[in-house]
Amino acid sequence: MTVELICVGTELLLGNIVNTNAAYLAEKCAGLGLACYFQTVVGDNRERLSMVLRTALERSDVIILSGGLGPTEDDLTKEVAAEVCGRQLVMHNQSKKAIKKYFEQRGIRPTDNNWKQAMLPEGCIVLENHNGTAPGVVMELENAKVVLLPGPPNELCPMFEESVMPYLAGLTAHVICSQTVKICGVGESKAETVVKDLIDAQTNPTIATYAKTGEVHIRVTADAADRKEAMKLIKPVVKELKNRFGNDIYSTEEDTTLEKAVIDLLRANDLTVTCAESCTGGLLSARLINVPGASDTYKSGVITYSNKAKRRFLGVKKSTLQKHGAVSEQTAEEMAKGAAFLLKADVAVAVTGLAGPDGGTEEKPVGLVYIACSVKGKITVKKYQFSGSRSKVRDSAVSAALTLMRSCILEYFSKVTFGKKD
Amino acid sequence: MTVELICVGTELLLGNIVNTNAAYLAEKCAGLGLACYFQTVVGDNRERLSMVLRTALERSDVIILSGGLGPTEDDLTKEVAAEVCGRQLVMHNQSKKAIKKYFEQRGIRPTDNNWKQAMLPEGCIVLENHNGTAPGVVMELENAKVVLLPGPPNELCPMFEESVMPYLAGLTAHVICSQTVKICGVGESKAETVVKDLIDAQTNPTIATYAKTGEVHIRVTADAADRKEAMKLIKPVVKELKNRFGNDIYSTEEDTTLEKAVIDLLRANDLTVTCAESCTGGLLSARLINVPGASDTYKSGVITYSNKAKRRFLGVKKSTLQKHGAVSEQTAEEMAKGAAFLLKADVAVAVTGLAGPDGGTEEKPVGLVYIACSVKGKITVKKYQFSGSRSKVRDSAVSAALTLMRSCILEYFSKVTFGKKD
Repeated sequence: MTVELICVGTELLLGNIVNTNAAYLAEKCAGLGLACYFQTVVGDNRERLSMVLRTALERSDVIILSGGLGPTEDDLTKEVAAEVCGRQLVMHNQSKKAIKKYFEQRGIRPTDNNWKQAMLPEGCIVLENHNGTAPGVVMELENAKVVLLPGPPNELCPMFEESVMPYLAGLTAHVICSQTVKICGVGESKAETVVKDLIDAQTNPTIATYAKTGEVHIRVTADAADRKEAMKLIKPVVKELKNRFGNDIYSTEEDTTLEKAVIDLLRANDLTVTCAESCTGGLLSARLINVPGASDTYKSGVITYSNKAKRRFLGVKKSTLQKHGAVSEQTAEEMAKGAAFLLKADVAVAVTGLAGPDGGTEEKPVGLVYIACSVKGKITVKKYQFSGSRSKVRDSAVSAALTLMRSCILEYFSKVTFGKKD
Repeated sequence: MTVELICVGTELLLGNIVNTNAAYLAEKCAGLGLACYFQTVVGDNRERLSMVLRTALERSDVIILSGGLGPTEDDLTKEVAAEVCGRQLVMHNQSKKAIKKYFEQRGIRPTDNNWKQAMLPEGCIVLENHNGTAPGVVMELENAKVVLLPGPPNELCPMFEESVMPYLAGLTAHVICSQTVKICGVGESKAETVVKDLIDAQTNPTIATYAKTGEVHIRVTADAADRKEAMKLIKPVVKELKNRFGNDIYSTEEDTTLEKAVIDLLRANDLTVTCAESCTGGLLSARLINVPGASDTYKSGVITYSNKAKRRFLGVKKSTLQKHGAVSEQTAEEMAKGAAFLLKADVAVAVTGLAGPDGGTEEKPVGLVYIACSVKGKITVKKYQFSGSRSKVRDSAVSAALTLMRSCILEYFSKVTFGKKD
């Protein structure tokens, strides 16, 4: 079954907003096993929207339109879609009541044009909107289904998950399930080499790799009669990936990020953590603290951007800075040692590097970063050479620091033998 | 003149990546005065790509394709576009040399399929790629121009700005110039009210508002015979906006961000700065330090996430924390005072709040944030109530802190009378 996305909105055509709805819907549809070959963005224009929808109806089984369900005159997705599908718009009393209630609860008086949102194509399936006033719509035509969703992501996403996903899943006699194996500290091309034979031989489940900053995700997707059957197909592949990548896999859970995996690991071992940051300037701490409940392990950290601050707050020796420079293995090591001691944490990670754009030399080019990690006094220092803009170098350094923290903690506690080496 | 965007890539159709190229190209094209009515995403598929391109050629003057210029067999944008436009692919020796040089500089041996990237449509304009191996292409047809760009944003954006923008500007006998007035600390609806009469009366230049986190940007765009003429049209409108928004405008420069404006202001007044962060956990420092050359003013900062750290590093009184709690005006004030004194900075800003998702009470709900700013001992504390996810609350708090820093510094030095009050 094929699906096609049509996102309606002048602000998308002007580039004022990024089309996150398309990425969201595309990913969810792929997860349902629907093949998506086309996405289109078109403005709030009767003629052009009608043209795009007619083209979509000729080539796809399910067409999902988002945006243009608002109360103003500009919003005409529903009107155009009803016309193209040969349906009349009629007042839907239940939706009218829901809109009335929505405004009452907020102490706002609805204006006349708000009732326009309760005018729905005759014979359609109505999708309740628990986060706004525009109901969603499904029109079942002879050869296609047309789904209309509101544009705001905080309305579209819950409506899709609550109503559209079960509806689409019900259209096929099978289910699509997937599991993502998340890997850190392994480059994309290396990861692809490791799984090349599996990808070449894939049928069901399928295997796909996705590169993220400092990470590679491998998604295993199975198509089966039911969830249990699908998971049975996925399980041996995930097991094989675990064999191949060993401890470089930090999670197989959908909502676990690398920073969450690190915080979980710290918690599980009852460890506190601190960060001493130079070039990353707070980004590493910010990522750790973005994990809800990080306060159990993260108490304090410092940003020591100047040499003086490195000496004063972390006890880095003047002679070290003079002899080796601020961006050096020795300085990183002393920063981590100082942070562990002065900020009293079990795990201390220090980052010092050249984020650029200026200040690079032949010996120490922009992108050179040293990261040191101390776990209960046992120190590891690693040298990295990143490329790209100032902000790219800093993001890469943060991911590398999280990866290093994770491997140093695991190694210290020797909970596992370390991942496959070349 | 109309433009149409075609973004090629299976990873877009699968929702693995968000289509930031489309937003970037759309915004730039709008800035050039080109009308964009359609954006399409299609996979690396010969038949479907060909269909989409043929449709675009029937209805648009300029078609910009991005992605699918890589060296692998999957990449077929150039092949399909050449075929649809009736051009042969021929070896372009200069591009071949450039590719050779690119690999040599990196000490990598090119593989045979790399030379495929130097095969270009005969008679095309070649756009040099300074950040990768795939050259860009412009094919000039009788009724349309077809532009091919590489997919990676770090290749596409510089190529567009260096080569495509001047080319497109040269196609019309007039120029489109714009200037953006950047405002902080004013809500979008408030800003729209302030300029409503100007927007209603707009013809040339046009005026459009864009909401960003904690900021509103107003873009003034003029269409004229040449740049000088356009700027002459823009100038009085920008002057009027300056009158209306006064000091809430932090910049009218394209590449000045709010954090850069703050760093510039600190530098101009020869001030050092420090941050003491709780809920933002390093994000504020990270944003300041992302400005190249921030080291002149930013020397060090602390993240005091626990109460103990607030006492130890900032000298917040135990009694203050007990009586008023960590998220309070009093704690924020003591944090800023302590930071100024202990970290020896002219300007110290402290952020303490509840980022959620848990831990809120009726009295202190999630999203409550206090920000204190000390400028040479003069302290200002403000209370904020933000909404949204943990990460949204933190981003909003960072923008608010930058806005507060800016206004406190300006007020301290009384360089200007403060922006219009209601």
